[in-house]
Amino acid sequence: MAKITKRSADYSQWYIDIVTRAEMADYAPVKGCMVIRPWGYAIWERMQRALDDMFKDTGHSNCYFPLLIPQSFLEKEAEHVKGFAPECAVVTHGGGKLLEEPLVIRPTSETIIWAMYKKWIQSWRDLPLLYNQWANVVRWEMRTRLFLRTAEFLWQEGHTAHATAKEAMEEAERILGIYRIFAEQWMAMPVLSGSKSEGQKFPGAEITYTIEALMQDGKALQAGTSHYLAQNFAKAFEVQFQNRDGQLEYVYATSWGVSTRLVGALVMSHSDDAGLVLPPKLAPLQVVVIPILKADADNAGILAAAYRVAEPFGDAVRVRVDDRDNVSPGWKFNEWELKGVPIRIEIGPKDLEKGQVVLVRRDTGEKIPTAMDAVSFQVPGVLEEVQESLLKKARQRLEAGCRKAESYDEFKRTIEEGGFIYAPWCGSRECEDRISEETKATIRLLPEGAEEGGACIACGKGPAKRVPFARAY
Amino acid sequence: MAKITKRSADYSQWYIDIVTRAEMADYAPVKGCMVIRPWGYAIWERMQRALDDMFKDTGHSNCYFPLLIPQSFLEKEAEHVKGFAPECAVVTHGGGKLLEEPLVIRPTSETIIWAMYKKWIQSWRDLPLLYNQWANVVRWEMRTRLFLRTAEFLWQEGHTAHATAKEAMEEAERILGIYRIFAEQWMAMPVLSGSKSEGQKFPGAEITYTIEALMQDGKALQAGTSHYLAQNFAKAFEVQFQNRDGQLEYVYATSWGVSTRLVGALVMSHSDDAGLVLPPKLAPLQVVVIPILKADADNAGILAAAYRVAEPFGDAVRVRVDDRDNVSPGWKFNEWELKGVPIRIEIGPKDLEKGQVVLVRRDTGEKIPTAMDAVSFQVPGVLEEVQESLLKKARQRLEAGCRKAESYDEFKRTIEEGGFIYAPWCGSRECEDRISEETKATIRLLPEGAEEGGACIACGKGPAKRVPFARAY
Repeated sequence: MAKITKRSADYSQWYIDIVTRAEMADYAPVKGCMVIRPWGYAIWERMQRALDDMFKDTGHSNCYFPLLIPQSFLEKEAEHVKGFAPECAVVTHGGGKLLEEPLVIRPTSETIIWAMYKKWIQSWRDLPLLYNQWANVVRWEMRTRLFLRTAEFLWQEGHTAHATAKEAMEEAERILGIYRIFAEQWMAMPVLSGSKSEGQKFPGAEITYTIEALMQDGKALQAGTSHYLAQNFAKAFEVQFQNRDGQLEYVYATSWGVSTRLVGALVMSHSDDAGLVLPPKLAPLQVVVIPILKADADNAGILAAAYRVAEPFGDAVRVRVDDRDNVSPGWKFNEWELKGVPIRIEIGPKDLEKGQVVLVRRDTGEKIPTAMDAVSFQVPGVLEEVQESLLKKARQRLEAGCRKAESYDEFKRTIEEGGFIYAPWCGSRECEDRISEETKATIRLLPEGAEEGGACIACGKGPAKRVPFARAY
Repeated sequence: MAKITKRSADYSQWYIDIVTRAEMADYAPVKGCMVIRPWGYAIWERMQRALDDMFKDTGHSNCYFPLLIPQSFLEKEAEHVKGFAPECAVVTHGGGKLLEEPLVIRPTSETIIWAMYKKWIQSWRDLPLLYNQWANVVRWEMRTRLFLRTAEFLWQEGHTAHATAKEAMEEAERILGIYRIFAEQWMAMPVLSGSKSEGQKFPGAEITYTIEALMQDGKALQAGTSHYLAQNFAKAFEVQFQNRDGQLEYVYATSWGVSTRLVGALVMSHSDDAGLVLPPKLAPLQVVVIPILKADADNAGILAAAYRVAEPFGDAVRVRVDDRDNVSPGWKFNEWELKGVPIRIEIGPKDLEKGQVVLVRRDTGEKIPTAMDAVSFQVPGVLEEVQESLLKKARQRLEAGCRKAESYDEFKRTIEEGGFIYAPWCGSRECEDRISEETKATIRLLPEGAEEGGACIACGKGPAKRVPFARAY
């Protein structure tokens, strides 16, 4: 099995090698689209299940809105159409005929959903509507990269309607909290959170909240956003309700989403030069048992022992015995390392004699000799340790990657080294745009209670606030 | 709450009333598309979960292939393009530019999947590939009906690749078995199964297996199909593998799917003039507890009792207390009947005094007084009874609906009454087409070991085989 590219040699190629060689995804025949293969999709399914449970626990229901949106709908909200129209795929023909009105494939569903909410919302008693959908969307991107940016991607999009601004704001913040918990507790990926600057927010939103993670190469990655839409879409689609006082009022809204780009973020959070490293909670397979079979020996005893070791886990741990006889144990080690299985269990003839096996941690390489009878009791604890240790390591990396710059010169130097560079900014769109143009770094978020920090690095004016800049995926 | 249309008055309108008034689905702004609302979607989610578990238990993995397919791909399999090209929605513009080659929105994914299988399959060791995807597809239908036939629908599509014809045939049959079990054990909807005639099979298939259900109005509904594709797509996309003997051979294939039309089939299998009737295994809510609150009384005791009754179920039963104070108990009864919740539990002041509640079965209306302490033990059994009793009733209806006709005259008379009419047919495409044109009834399937039955009702020639005809959704 040929080695994958080293991170130090070419980070981008290393990423692509992992994604394709671990059979997570492949390039589709249509430019910019991808095929998600079973190993990648199984990770996405685990992400879906965890998020979906949290959405449901907080009162949300799933539903499904149509893929195709009349082009005129997109035009009803001024900012929204500016943001999305240039990226749309357009259906002009159906059933062999030219359509009267072109249809766009949803780039996001606010417009079609608010057209329906107009039918469903009359009174405060109809509120809140707490809806989510798992769906595919299409945005005609020019520069694509498997999982991170593709013309079609899978995501969930929540769309809620509320009677008051306060309730809607709380909802947007609640979801940000869910995203944050999911990133940290499931993906073992610590994040910064806050709201987006004017230049970076969602087209049509009043406030965009974001979680931002730091990849190993020092680039930031926006991992989830939650928008407070105020009454923008309600006004565009004339969705009014009778409030408790009997008066007509426009409905308040949120929308929020995470996508399959999280799978890419996961790859770049933990993996190494041997391949993928997966947190146990999201690993399709948590343990692989590898009997050390010999070409010219009676392997029956070893094989039986491998099955005996795997059997007691039942549904509690996702385990598989790799009993293939056409590849060597070493080949299997490499393959499962490439695929990121958290624990490998080796059983050879000497282990069998001693009644033991060797557990090998994917993340650290640590070898843990374990009595055969104790394996099923030991493994859950080791899996938990792996999960925690990945988070801890990622957190240390994030903390080390958050630094300060006091002047524009220092900023320009530091930004080359990657990470979140906290620098004073006066708050103007002009300085934001200038810095971004000159350094390719953007303001990732406005932290809550940002520190007052002297003079703006771009214009020199004060008082400025310290905000994190980074180059981003 | 206004009543829904009666079945006897207008079956079609009754169906639409249930779907829209129970808030299962609504019409989308784009002609022929629908919005699946939370109540309908929750049923679909339960269907998905049950089927997905069965697919995984039989070794299948999920993955995701792109929405957009180059038009030229569709043209590679002759039968396939004839069948699907007229129904395609076509994307001609992306990112503001005219595309070099138009893309069709997948009407089904054989072509894009086999283009990828060509990359992934080299040797017999790569086989079988047992893949499934949950996805949306678009077919530009002219006459649409919520759930039953919509321009966009949700489905699962399995696509497997095998080294031998025998294995592929077994796979197609295995899936037919899964569909049959799902229809009967989960939907409480008994089905006939068999293979399709030449005139009814999937474009590109060698054999199409089908399960067919009988709706209450005597019309048949194709509820799932599983296709043995032989080497048709492998040849179209040049997918060869090296077999165990070192020779190159084309791969054998299957594909199979069920869709959101199953939700429509479910409605028409069990529901009545009061609304939806749901089998407990698929009901989003299995039990609703309704405290009989009085406008001018202290309801605290009743409310507390309602919560006490609901509490012990935990995750075992899906239960909700309807504690709204703005609608009457009678209004709630009607609403939950309309929505098909299998068991209603009523608690009034007198019940409270007696330490009992009344369970009311949605399917039969039967009232079962039950001691308050015994509710959580009784309910699971009642839910099982409801599930079984729905299946039994549907099976009796199916059996009564299967009849014979010996002559064309008798056939024409009988077909008007609905049901599956078993009539002798010589096997020719000509007679099949003539009968279908003259009576609007189609051959639903060729039963395994069909009875020899005298002379063909159309041409009078023998020996003919007895096959079930029906008018169908």
